[in-house]
Amino acid sequence: MARSARSDLKVLAFDVFGTVVDWRGGVAAEMTAVAKDLRLTVDAPAFADRWRSKYLPYLNRIRNGEMPWQVLDAVHRASLGELINELSLQSLTEADLDRLVFAWHHLPPWPDAVEGMARMRARYVLTALSNGGMAHLVDVNRAARLPFDCVLSVELIRTYKPDPRVYRLVPDLLAVPPEQSMMVASHAYDLAAAAGQGMRTAFVRRPQEWGTGKPETLDISVDIVAEDFLDLASQLGDLR
Amino acid sequence: MARSARSDLKVLAFDVFGTVVDWRGGVAAEMTAVAKDLRLTVDAPAFADRWRSKYLPYLNRIRNGEMPWQVLDAVHRASLGELINELSLQSLTEADLDRLVFAWHHLPPWPDAVEGMARMRARYVLTALSNGGMAHLVDVNRAARLPFDCVLSVELIRTYKPDPRVYRLVPDLLAVPPEQSMMVASHAYDLAAAAGQGMRTAFVRRPQEWGTGKPETLDISVDIVAEDFLDLASQLGDLR
Repeated sequence: MARSARSDLKVLAFDVFGTVVDWRGGVAAEMTAVAKDLRLTVDAPAFADRWRSKYLPYLNRIRNGEMPWQVLDAVHRASLGELINELSLQSLTEADLDRLVFAWHHLPPWPDAVEGMARMRARYVLTALSNGGMAHLVDVNRAARLPFDCVLSVELIRTYKPDPRVYRLVPDLLAVPPEQSMMVASHAYDLAAAAGQGMRTAFVRRPQEWGTGKPETLDISVDIVAEDFLDLASQLGDLR
Repeated sequence: MARSARSDLKVLAFDVFGTVVDWRGGVAAEMTAVAKDLRLTVDAPAFADRWRSKYLPYLNRIRNGEMPWQVLDAVHRASLGELINELSLQSLTEADLDRLVFAWHHLPPWPDAVEGMARMRARYVLTALSNGGMAHLVDVNRAARLPFDCVLSVELIRTYKPDPRVYRLVPDLLAVPPEQSMMVASHAYDLAAAAGQGMRTAFVRRPQEWGTGKPETLDISVDIVAEDFLDLASQLGDLR
């Protein structure tokens, strides 16, 4: 990041699922509990991975106008229905399905997330900028005690990342030029779209997002690469 | 409030200026400081009162479509220009005017506000629902350390209270039926409009809002009347 640009950074916009909270761990834990109650044998982490993999195609169809707008909860519910059929888990009740969809509302934060955010919040405005709905993100933030100043959801404009309008919520609603804001994410596609709207970019490695021990490949140029939020806080602090 | 309705309350939506923070004290303090720098004699509390009095007519004109949409900062700037002329305070510089407009971004909370909100937040989702713009409200919340879960501004729909669409932001974005939400305000007009959209209502007395020692007259029926936020927290706790 160019030195001249450092001192005027004002807003950090965080991707949430995968970047701040561990969707795989949270969903697998809930599936393990459901399976135990039903005396089923399920590979819960693999179940979480398969469910998450159904996410982007849905969002693409909504973004492209092939499907009507729906919040992420509805996408999760529809894709869970598909998955249950594929895995022959029809013994799950409607209440079980509700419980699994709601698992996405109380996901565990990565161990460094809350402390790192608290450090960054002393200097910067922290906003969520996520594909989750507003109520969904409020639940996630409360459950994980995430110290956000503000919640910005794609629900405000009824599309999904990486639609450019998502990233323009930051300058439009938080009254900063895009270059005084930074997108923080563990996904290159999200950062590339943010950079396309003039935001700065921080890639945070989350090697356990898919349980592989390997972070996503970073095939684009970013302003900061961080090992976790404590490292990001230090790098942003050092830049002042 | 009917006993049957008590246990399912989920969201508390707070008016901010006057209800949570003391605009008169904060604006008067800034005007006192500006006047001292310029060696002017100004009745700073009366200045704050006159400025605030210019607020509703502007908002009415914007709501009625007689003026184009503008955020509250712009309303404050325009009405301050009028006031400066009326009071023959043309010696104030543009920087002084900016400083006064920005005083509305770092207003002191009422003494009970933060503790009362922290108590209520343990049980309810707390959102701002205010005429301030998004960035403005984020500044207010950070300066006063207000423990909101979420910020909902009229800027999201580009109108002002008491337009019914303002109150519908709560069920629409926070995924609760209106009757599971409660508007908290020290102004009857705000509560009347919220009730009109099915929200419950809590009137909080703020006898020093205008420095008179007398809270606003409550000429409507509300679910709760509270002396301050600690009293409100106790009344909401007792209801569970």
